[in-house]
Amino acid sequence: MSLVILGTLAFDAIETPYGKTDKIVGGAALYNALAAINYCPVNLISVIGDDFPKLTLNMLSEKQINLDGVEVKKGEKTFFWACKYHNDMNHRDTLQTDLNVLANFEPHVPSLYQQNQFLMLGNLMPSIQRTVILQYPKRPCFVAMDTMNFWIEHYYNDLIETLKLVDCLFLNDSEAKLLTQEVSLVAAAKKIMSLGPKYVIVKKGEHGAILFHKDFMFCAPAIPLELVFDPTGCGDTFAGGFMGYLAQQKELNKEVFKMALIQGTAAASYCIEKFGIERLTEINLSDIQSRVEALKEMTAF
Amino acid sequence: MSLVILGTLAFDAIETPYGKTDKIVGGAALYNALAAINYCPVNLISVIGDDFPKLTLNMLSEKQINLDGVEVKKGEKTFFWACKYHNDMNHRDTLQTDLNVLANFEPHVPSLYQQNQFLMLGNLMPSIQRTVILQYPKRPCFVAMDTMNFWIEHYYNDLIETLKLVDCLFLNDSEAKLLTQEVSLVAAAKKIMSLGPKYVIVKKGEHGAILFHKDFMFCAPAIPLELVFDPTGCGDTFAGGFMGYLAQQKELNKEVFKMALIQGTAAASYCIEKFGIERLTEINLSDIQSRVEALKEMTAF
Repeated sequence: MSLVILGTLAFDAIETPYGKTDKIVGGAALYNALAAINYCPVNLISVIGDDFPKLTLNMLSEKQINLDGVEVKKGEKTFFWACKYHNDMNHRDTLQTDLNVLANFEPHVPSLYQQNQFLMLGNLMPSIQRTVILQYPKRPCFVAMDTMNFWIEHYYNDLIETLKLVDCLFLNDSEAKLLTQEVSLVAAAKKIMSLGPKYVIVKKGEHGAILFHKDFMFCAPAIPLELVFDPTGCGDTFAGGFMGYLAQQKELNKEVFKMALIQGTAAASYCIEKFGIERLTEINLSDIQSRVEALKEMTAF
Repeated sequence: MSLVILGTLAFDAIETPYGKTDKIVGGAALYNALAAINYCPVNLISVIGDDFPKLTLNMLSEKQINLDGVEVKKGEKTFFWACKYHNDMNHRDTLQTDLNVLANFEPHVPSLYQQNQFLMLGNLMPSIQRTVILQYPKRPCFVAMDTMNFWIEHYYNDLIETLKLVDCLFLNDSEAKLLTQEVSLVAAAKKIMSLGPKYVIVKKGEHGAILFHKDFMFCAPAIPLELVFDPTGCGDTFAGGFMGYLAQQKELNKEVFKMALIQGTAAASYCIEKFGIERLTEINLSDIQSRVEALKEMTAF
């Protein structure tokens, strides 16, 4: 089956201990899509200004990523985000956020997309995520969403409404604790599952990820890397790999979800190796599978 | 084979978000020994005052933990340590440290112990750890040590001398970065391996542990628990389980080291469930094996 991805296409300016970029292309949907396209057909829903590079759009089209749902706003500017990573790279400061075209984003699901059974809702205002689900005449069989501390703190009720409609929530460990006011991740995940999602995926950066379901837990370590060049987009690459892998399965069961977490982890391990999407555009499914093997070697006993 | 453990026996006073203890027995060697005795004969080297409870010494003897190397200093007091955990339990403040008998500790390896081929050097001044190795007429086949930020910061050269003599170093992730001035754990572990130890085990608390060797890496997650009652001694229980498992093996190879990391992880998951050593005194090897199975279930794909 194919996957619909809602999310941002953006310009990012990134500074890490290893260097600094000018404006480069980024955004959650871009990372999601570049990971997922290794597994299944991908259909994007996003919004950009007419300053967004044709070169990038062409690259996406060449990779068979469908852009019918990407609205181009004439005379307007693409969403811009600037950040600086600390020396330990687990922390970053947002230096600038210019919403631009994102300020009035009203996503529209093309009718062609409405037959897709897998939906990934990237980190956006929860009410916008919800409008996309509600545009489907028949609910997709699997809906996942990402979120962040800003929505938890300022749009809590709105977020709760959207959570009722999704199968799977991606968030990081501090966000899981913030959302539930729980100290332990297990307790936090249980509480989130009582709010709607059957699956909760807690992202822990360099410490890997944990998948929670009422009947099982599954832990994937991040691949320890000597050089962590730029963590931007790793979480989105992870989610894209996870959802892409799921979308191509005949049946969704425990083993499939475990492997999806591993595939996402393997894909994300490439993202970190260069600035922005550069490394992701160079790899293919067999590269990802070699990291899956490495993960097996470093976890099997 | 049997294992010799050098380390502290202590009184601890612990405060966590779930409660507060009076003085209870603790110390690295106590946790080490209670974990290792599930696997192999254990011989302790430590020092206590005559205030240390007979009841605890009797309990250790009943478990066949050899106390010939435990010196009792008449009229003196046992080492005392008080700490308070923060709400998130990954951080704690040391409130009080009274060295007492530890101030002039000169460990002596009983001749009976000198045939033991496995040696665990608990966290102590590096020169004291070194004197124990040097008391062996023939070097043990496997020597592991633990250390901490205090020795790295104030006894660096001394620590480097001791590192040259050991096969395996246990330390936590921030200590690994502090010791090597590296940002990535992989780079830090490589640098530590160039200083002597063939194996570096980085403890990451609730995020598990990573074993580094020049030919392989192995990651074990901590078992996610709903209630983290008291983390005191978890790292020492982990090291004790690891070393106890190693000591009973006919051959040391990659698969054995992987399983040792898992056994240590499984043992440590019990330690956290009650204050101090209480939970460890209640469990046996088959309890640990049930957690090993749980770890397999939550990591195998």
